[in-house]
Amino acid sequence: MFVSECLTVNQQDHLQISSCDTVALAQEYGTPLYVMSGDQIRQNCRMFCRSMEKFYAGKGMVLYASKAFSCKEIYRIMREEGMGLDVVSGGELYTALSVGFPAEKIYFHGNNKTPDELTYAIRSNVGRIVVDNLTELETLSALSVAEGKTAQILFRIKPGIDAHTHDFIRTGQIDSKFGLALENGEAFEAVKAAQTYPNISLTGLHCHIGSQIFDIEPFCHAAEVMIDFLGKIKAELGLELPELNLGGGFGIKYLSDHDPTPYDQYMEQVSAAVKSSCEKNHIAQPFILIEPGRSIVGAAGITLYTVGGVKEIKGIRTYVSVDGGMADNPRYALYNAPYEALIANKATQPKNLIATIAGKCCESGDLIQEHTAIQQTNPGDILAVLSTGAYNYSMSSNYNRIPRPAVVLAEEGKSRVIVRRETYEDLIKNDL
Amino acid sequence: MFVSECLTVNQQDHLQISSCDTVALAQEYGTPLYVMSGDQIRQNCRMFCRSMEKFYAGKGMVLYASKAFSCKEIYRIMREEGMGLDVVSGGELYTALSVGFPAEKIYFHGNNKTPDELTYAIRSNVGRIVVDNLTELETLSALSVAEGKTAQILFRIKPGIDAHTHDFIRTGQIDSKFGLALENGEAFEAVKAAQTYPNISLTGLHCHIGSQIFDIEPFCHAAEVMIDFLGKIKAELGLELPELNLGGGFGIKYLSDHDPTPYDQYMEQVSAAVKSSCEKNHIAQPFILIEPGRSIVGAAGITLYTVGGVKEIKGIRTYVSVDGGMADNPRYALYNAPYEALIANKATQPKNLIATIAGKCCESGDLIQEHTAIQQTNPGDILAVLSTGAYNYSMSSNYNRIPRPAVVLAEEGKSRVIVRRETYEDLIKNDL
Repeated sequence: MFVSECLTVNQQDHLQISSCDTVALAQEYGTPLYVMSGDQIRQNCRMFCRSMEKFYAGKGMVLYASKAFSCKEIYRIMREEGMGLDVVSGGELYTALSVGFPAEKIYFHGNNKTPDELTYAIRSNVGRIVVDNLTELETLSALSVAEGKTAQILFRIKPGIDAHTHDFIRTGQIDSKFGLALENGEAFEAVKAAQTYPNISLTGLHCHIGSQIFDIEPFCHAAEVMIDFLGKIKAELGLELPELNLGGGFGIKYLSDHDPTPYDQYMEQVSAAVKSSCEKNHIAQPFILIEPGRSIVGAAGITLYTVGGVKEIKGIRTYVSVDGGMADNPRYALYNAPYEALIANKATQPKNLIATIAGKCCESGDLIQEHTAIQQTNPGDILAVLSTGAYNYSMSSNYNRIPRPAVVLAEEGKSRVIVRRETYEDLIKNDL
Repeated sequence: MFVSECLTVNQQDHLQISSCDTVALAQEYGTPLYVMSGDQIRQNCRMFCRSMEKFYAGKGMVLYASKAFSCKEIYRIMREEGMGLDVVSGGELYTALSVGFPAEKIYFHGNNKTPDELTYAIRSNVGRIVVDNLTELETLSALSVAEGKTAQILFRIKPGIDAHTHDFIRTGQIDSKFGLALENGEAFEAVKAAQTYPNISLTGLHCHIGSQIFDIEPFCHAAEVMIDFLGKIKAELGLELPELNLGGGFGIKYLSDHDPTPYDQYMEQVSAAVKSSCEKNHIAQPFILIEPGRSIVGAAGITLYTVGGVKEIKGIRTYVSVDGGMADNPRYALYNAPYEALIANKATQPKNLIATIAGKCCESGDLIQEHTAIQQTNPGDILAVLSTGAYNYSMSSNYNRIPRPAVVLAEEGKSRVIVRRETYEDLIKNDL
């Protein structure tokens, strides 16, 4: 019925998440409120790990791409579930280390890591640093020498795959700020260069072809391209790189009619592509990494708002104003991202109001969704927006000096705050 | 030469702001760094106030629309300059009151103020609450009764003016989440209703036709429409409302070839329109409020970044990566907003590199500007993006868990931090 298994409806016709009544959650913790299903997150982690076990004999590791949702508690969950981590900044690394996440399972990404971040990663003994370009390789080598350590690195490669997704989130083609291109020889030159820099140990390659991709074919194609490249490196340089990081980008269900491919099928088909490409190229099967982020937390999260005003503009549209908006979810303003919404206290009533859900920011573009079907609503109702677990809290701002909402974790009918709501005092804490 | 008078070049060919060397600022305070010219901000305030004096005999007040840039120090400056304030949230109100800003000069706006915010505004004795709709009027009346106070209000009116600006920031037409429409009688009904609610005192009307508008004509037209409405209210209800808030939306110079109308001309022509409309409608000239925000702080601010990598993709484009991005300036990602940039340590060298300035976030859309002319550049150079004083710090996020930059105020060759840089510890302070 809903976009996520963790969502159900109780006898009061209230939406539930992990068996917690969302109307009661709104009352207890206030709105706007992010709620994440811990059960669903753990179930998603286990599904990816099992799939890696089943189709690739466990010769790999699943890394949680934590830019989707980063806080201390999510890293504790990932540690408990045996996941590795993809971090993209010193801040994410700091947060992960603050809860004792094992550094050797952390992969540090980014197109423009600062020297401070690189030094921090080296000192923290992160598992791998994914090097984006030759300037970074040179900087990293010098910093590794200074620290008396050897950096284990992967190179980020642009495999030249166009995954037909939104312009903003398409990253595998040659016109990208990320990585080294294959087709112009840049990537191959980098692999050669890595052999000449001190305190650098190249262990493999990384690619990432985009985000919110529903087809398996581009993933398989990317794997083949990357393994062909590993074959070329072996043939021409006598170097057999043991690791291949295939990135993430698996599409999730934002709307009921979205139909993402089961991740099992992804792992099955990509594993087959990897194996046959390795045979063709006469190389051993590499240790594989995949980086799901959105597909672990996206559909596991919802946002609860209180409805303020309802403004019907006859012949034009009906605005339903909520007590949050682009400050807690800028994705409609940024990408026209689709979301499904419902009135949580009338969860199974017919959705016979076509509404534009407007936020409270002083900006016309502050909309959560336009022309979407919800139940008839009045001020005081609780409106739930679904599939907000990824890139909502992580992209939130204090625009209009609105404090950021709390994040609550729901698990098996119980709930607790994992990120406290910001206070007005928090807003001015750095003001002099 | 530059988009703002506060920008000059010194003998080392370094960009200066308020006579402070930007390269030295970057060294002293680190990058990314927001720098605001206090001189320019004060000059802009005085220009608006003088203009109100000159063309409308001072029978009005200039309100700083603080959503453009809100922090404690900017409110101190506004207080010193004798300005009033436009605030749009409890957080902005809290910040203003925390530095002793006089409450009676504060106008509280918003399409969906929460009951808590309304109560806070009533208890704080803010000058005016700008009521958006009838639901809010009803709530405000009940809360005012509970607090034993009378709320002085304006109504937000949609004058039905299309100011031909960007869809996201066009707010005066009937299809808007803001305010009460004139053409369908909604606004008139609200004025009548206000007479019937206890503890409500209607003192006038407010309108705001959009943002970044370069023509004076729509402002004059809006003033005429609003005064015709004041005339109708007098004629039909015998009620002469003494205040008219004409909002803001004055265009600023983002690019050198932008040519905003001098604000003096705006005040001169709008004052004339107000006066002749009042004569026509047989009403006294109202007390006028205007609400400049961007036009006070926008061109007074710049952002300084350190260049990381330079990635030339032959035949396609050159990416210049900087150590900030959409987390500190999401306006290109949101609106394709135009910005001018230059290499601050080579300020007058020819701009013969056509570059795409990319941020450090793990997102392809994390760009500050595409295909823009800058000087030839190398890692370590300081890149300045101009006219970032409005809607940059205020819209900033911790996306990718990147700490928000410091804000430095430059005045007459001296500089000081007014908002401290966030630390990694700040990022996890609310994490449990």
